[in-house]
Amino acid sequence: MNSELDISGLAREGDSRIVLLVIDGLGGHPHPETGRSELETAHLPNLDAIAAESACGLTVPIAPGITPGSGPGHLALFGYDPLVYQVGRGVMEALGIGLELAEDDVAARGNFCTVDDDGVLLDRRAGRITSELNAELSELLNEISLSQGRVSVHSVRGHRFVAVFHGAGAGLRATDTDPGIAGLPPGRSLPLTKDAEWLAATVNEFTDLAQQALRGREAQAVVLRGIAGRDPLPSFGDRYRLRPAAIAAYPMYRGLANLAGMDVLDAGDDFEGEIRALRTAFEAGGHDFFFLHYKPADSAGEDGDFEAKIEALQEIDRWIPQIVSLSPDVLVVAGDHSTPAVLAGHSWHPVPLAIRSADTRGDGAAAFAERAMSRGSLGRVPATSVMTLALAHAGRLRRFGP
Amino acid sequence: MNSELDISGLAREGDSRIVLLVIDGLGGHPHPETGRSELETAHLPNLDAIAAESACGLTVPIAPGITPGSGPGHLALFGYDPLVYQVGRGVMEALGIGLELAEDDVAARGNFCTVDDDGVLLDRRAGRITSELNAELSELLNEISLSQGRVSVHSVRGHRFVAVFHGAGAGLRATDTDPGIAGLPPGRSLPLTKDAEWLAATVNEFTDLAQQALRGREAQAVVLRGIAGRDPLPSFGDRYRLRPAAIAAYPMYRGLANLAGMDVLDAGDDFEGEIRALRTAFEAGGHDFFFLHYKPADSAGEDGDFEAKIEALQEIDRWIPQIVSLSPDVLVVAGDHSTPAVLAGHSWHPVPLAIRSADTRGDGAAAFAERAMSRGSLGRVPATSVMTLALAHAGRLRRFGP
Repeated sequence: MNSELDISGLAREGDSRIVLLVIDGLGGHPHPETGRSELETAHLPNLDAIAAESACGLTVPIAPGITPGSGPGHLALFGYDPLVYQVGRGVMEALGIGLELAEDDVAARGNFCTVDDDGVLLDRRAGRITSELNAELSELLNEISLSQGRVSVHSVRGHRFVAVFHGAGAGLRATDTDPGIAGLPPGRSLPLTKDAEWLAATVNEFTDLAQQALRGREAQAVVLRGIAGRDPLPSFGDRYRLRPAAIAAYPMYRGLANLAGMDVLDAGDDFEGEIRALRTAFEAGGHDFFFLHYKPADSAGEDGDFEAKIEALQEIDRWIPQIVSLSPDVLVVAGDHSTPAVLAGHSWHPVPLAIRSADTRGDGAAAFAERAMSRGSLGRVPATSVMTLALAHAGRLRRFGP
Repeated sequence: MNSELDISGLAREGDSRIVLLVIDGLGGHPHPETGRSELETAHLPNLDAIAAESACGLTVPIAPGITPGSGPGHLALFGYDPLVYQVGRGVMEALGIGLELAEDDVAARGNFCTVDDDGVLLDRRAGRITSELNAELSELLNEISLSQGRVSVHSVRGHRFVAVFHGAGAGLRATDTDPGIAGLPPGRSLPLTKDAEWLAATVNEFTDLAQQALRGREAQAVVLRGIAGRDPLPSFGDRYRLRPAAIAAYPMYRGLANLAGMDVLDAGDDFEGEIRALRTAFEAGGHDFFFLHYKPADSAGEDGDFEAKIEALQEIDRWIPQIVSLSPDVLVVAGDHSTPAVLAGHSWHPVPLAIRSADTRGDGAAAFAERAMSRGSLGRVPATSVMTLALAHAGRLRRFGP
């Protein structure tokens, strides 16, 4: 989290309740033909009403020009400086398929590869094999028995899998075996942290045994990246003096919230289930902070489908009245990053931010969209400031200094 | 460079080409009679077209209210944090007159001064003597022979010269002998770095011998500032995975680019020569980044000549089509600082920035001018972010984190 300001020293408990709605991939970019972005094109009466009653601005997820993954994008919104708190690629991939990692597990992201007779990598993605073949090859690897400890292999999709080295030890990291290019053999892993010698040796043993197990198959080798344990984050609840709940249909976001120590609620597998979980939790009264995640805008942007992104935004717009009807003291609508359909991927562009509370009436932007909100009263803020602003609007922060 | 984010870990090689056009002293300030700045008054059809097709914003060179010299202004645009990478005043002055410094040379900026009979400084600028007299006195100093090592003295203009202590040693620095005010004698230099004892002693010997050599002349003493070697900067090309070329008619900018490890191309002594060099280098294909420097806007601003600054801006506007015709993947138009004619000098005001790529169509500002561009999608960014943004638009940055 922001190391410069001790927020936990300023935060105080209270009765107010905060909903942080994260619209994944919220920001977009003008379509070259119309000059209007997805948000500027979509019909969003409810989000526009939110913008009109909110303090509005744009968040900078990491730094100008830097495109975040969803992991760092969310960590920043939760107030963890993503340059300080870097969650390993293996851990993130494990969270993404819903694996629960124990404290002394180490996870690695793996690729199935093809190699020549000398063991030199030909294709680091094995021609992007099918997920069915991946599942079959992963089962072969699951039969590997190590000289010490245990590895489990979990098929993801295409050429990707997760390897978990169980009982490796907490906080350990080792170097990648993926050289990043073809033409070289898989590398040997080296310890990156104290006491990681056993981990590195085991990774190398696994790499060798995998080549034996895969001999004669469609992929003949594996490379591993992001070999690291599940570093727990400092507690979100302690830092902000909140009782936080996370409501997300996608495993990775539940996993991230779990890393931050939020209560992860059972939310089903779509946004309707999430809204139901939100309402139930709101009525139960055990929490005062709700992270609510909406995924489809990002997926449509990633697909490069301008129309689908508009539809995904219009869909979340139709859910807004249900959230508003719960009367949270503070409703934050934010995004972890932009995913412009014209770029068909995440991007570095600043992301719309609206913070609505009893104190923000009379403030507001003309529309819930990039350009209108860039002229809002919040201006351009680092994404790591969103929680501080949310707490301020909830009356949850003491004055700094006498 | 930005110490927090490892850009070199995100940068990737590619086929895209970037032109960074730096219009020295680009930003201005409204004329009190018309309320319009130089950019807002000038007729700039080509720059306006650039603005319309670009992501636009303003750069903050150092920090709000801080007026940069051209050195820090350029370092920031190249991505070197000017608070971290401080090029010595002596080195900068040496670069400005086209001196080539060896690795173990130490340069100092010198002033000719007048002193009273007790050696107390009367005028630290010797009544701003003429450049002709300066040249004559500098020749006198060039005859000084030190007990060890060698000094060379290079006339600049007015009361200013550069002293180079040859073979002093790499990375050495010593304290100024200039007390900064009249009424004191020139100070004694002290070592600022390990192993700089010899340097400090030699500076003091030179100061004494200069007073002997100048006895009875129009200036009777010298004071030195910014006594430091030529610290090479971390390589620009390595950091960004670019093959950079610098095209500048003025020596100081070539020198700075050389410090950053850019290939400094032969560009003649005017902008026409620079454009020719750009075209030749572009066609040769050995580089993928081109720093192109345009000086006259700054000179006119420094002169306090509003009309001349407008004309200088209109002149660069007429060159724009030639740059655009090369079809760089990314064209950045930036300034190292503002030089408002109404202030007749550099200023702290944010500077217009346009980044034009295939992805920025439909974005854009209504005009290439301060106020119109302040409402652009980039907002206000630190000048040290310009390279990151340029690389992002060139598709040269990987995503940060999983």
